[in-house]
Amino acid sequence: MSGHLAVIGLGPGDASCLTPEANAALTKADAVYGYATYLERVPARANQARHASDNREESERAAAALKHASLGARVAIVSGGDPGVFAMAAAVCEEIEAGPENLRALDVTIVPGITAMLAVAARIGAPLGHDFCVLSLSDNLKPWERIERRLDAAATAGFVMALYNPVSRARPWQFGAAIKRLRCHLPPATPVVFGRAVTRQSEQISVVTLERAEAVEADMATLVIVGSRETRVIARPGKLPLVYTPRAAAEVSA
Amino acid sequence: MSGHLAVIGLGPGDASCLTPEANAALTKADAVYGYATYLERVPARANQARHASDNREESERAAAALKHASLGARVAIVSGGDPGVFAMAAAVCEEIEAGPENLRALDVTIVPGITAMLAVAARIGAPLGHDFCVLSLSDNLKPWERIERRLDAAATAGFVMALYNPVSRARPWQFGAAIKRLRCHLPPATPVVFGRAVTRQSEQISVVTLERAEAVEADMATLVIVGSRETRVIARPGKLPLVYTPRAAAEVSA
Repeated sequence: MSGHLAVIGLGPGDASCLTPEANAALTKADAVYGYATYLERVPARANQARHASDNREESERAAAALKHASLGARVAIVSGGDPGVFAMAAAVCEEIEAGPENLRALDVTIVPGITAMLAVAARIGAPLGHDFCVLSLSDNLKPWERIERRLDAAATAGFVMALYNPVSRARPWQFGAAIKRLRCHLPPATPVVFGRAVTRQSEQISVVTLERAEAVEADMATLVIVGSRETRVIARPGKLPLVYTPRAAAEVSA
Repeated sequence: MSGHLAVIGLGPGDASCLTPEANAALTKADAVYGYATYLERVPARANQARHASDNREESERAAAALKHASLGARVAIVSGGDPGVFAMAAAVCEEIEAGPENLRALDVTIVPGITAMLAVAARIGAPLGHDFCVLSLSDNLKPWERIERRLDAAATAGFVMALYNPVSRARPWQFGAAIKRLRCHLPPATPVVFGRAVTRQSEQISVVTLERAEAVEADMATLVIVGSRETRVIARPGKLPLVYTPRAAAEVSA
């Protein structure tokens, strides 16, 4: 089978964050599949077909791209950020496992990208400088009780948390519930970072305390980092503060 | 103060993984500081000073670079992978907080990079496709008991784990101890991925079960991913298997 599928991470948005490897993979593709918003970031190329689909249609998009590649084409699927973090690479693997045997012979390349938590962390210091957990707050694909249990485990074991998909139109209360839950484990002054659309024109970064975190507007383009008991804030004159988690654990901590 | 410090992520190794933003920041620097092994990856440039130091000297390197920048120079510090994940960004923040007040007025830019876990995950499928934890197994800067508690919390709450710094010459037993500990919580068949020097000439990837994980050689250039109860392996003819964690939680799981 001569076809090829590349699952490509576009990074947080700005072209300066797209790796040369990702750019080369995009250039070679006969066809590019993706959520319409991400596909818009890919410059149109002559003789390259474009297949835009809705955000929710990950399985269908993966299946269509795999089928296209299995016919012998060079096909690309694009993801925002990194394709392996709450994105298309898992959807592609699911379709390969569930699909016809010949899909297992297909050449599949996954091209990593700068995922949102790395871009947001870089903007504000080094909040992920010590052990951390990465959770999606979406309960579309897992029960809310499991999310609560993971928040409890992460907070009590002293992990910093990067929270993906904090809010959507269909999930208006989950982020508030998560913050309330974390307040049972962490001090009111724990730093919380909101990074929205980082590297894009509408970029917004804010730092608040856990006590005030609910009041900040978050949406699907927002990545939230909740500190541990060891995360620190350095105020700076005329600049955003630096938020960081020291490499060394404090003598006494959670 | 006109000086500037850029803390730059070089990614996993190959130049195709270095972002244009990182490359531009390197080009502009008057001086580049870094662990000698990482500095070797940066092409020499005319009129650009190079300051190589040992792996362990992170605080001294950060302090020297900050001091140099505070004299008005454009200074870069390079990190392998992403500077915010067990790397130089936290060391720089520590020195800013502990150092003289004028360091807070300095312009500091952190340039994210592809961290090892993203590069390794991309090579093997999508093991980080669901909630995961990121831990350093180094007990140089935190007590081993805390690492054990975090391993327990991560495994029992159903997180996949990315383990940085599994082994070093000075820490020969910690990885074996971690694997033994994880066997108390996870089934013997849980997939474990070892990714060594990914994107570099000496790249090695292997997938084993938790039962056999201890036998695989790991070193400081190795990143280990331990699956959750939901992580799956797809065998492929003549190819590495695909290892992935489905986006949807199983009905019954840890």
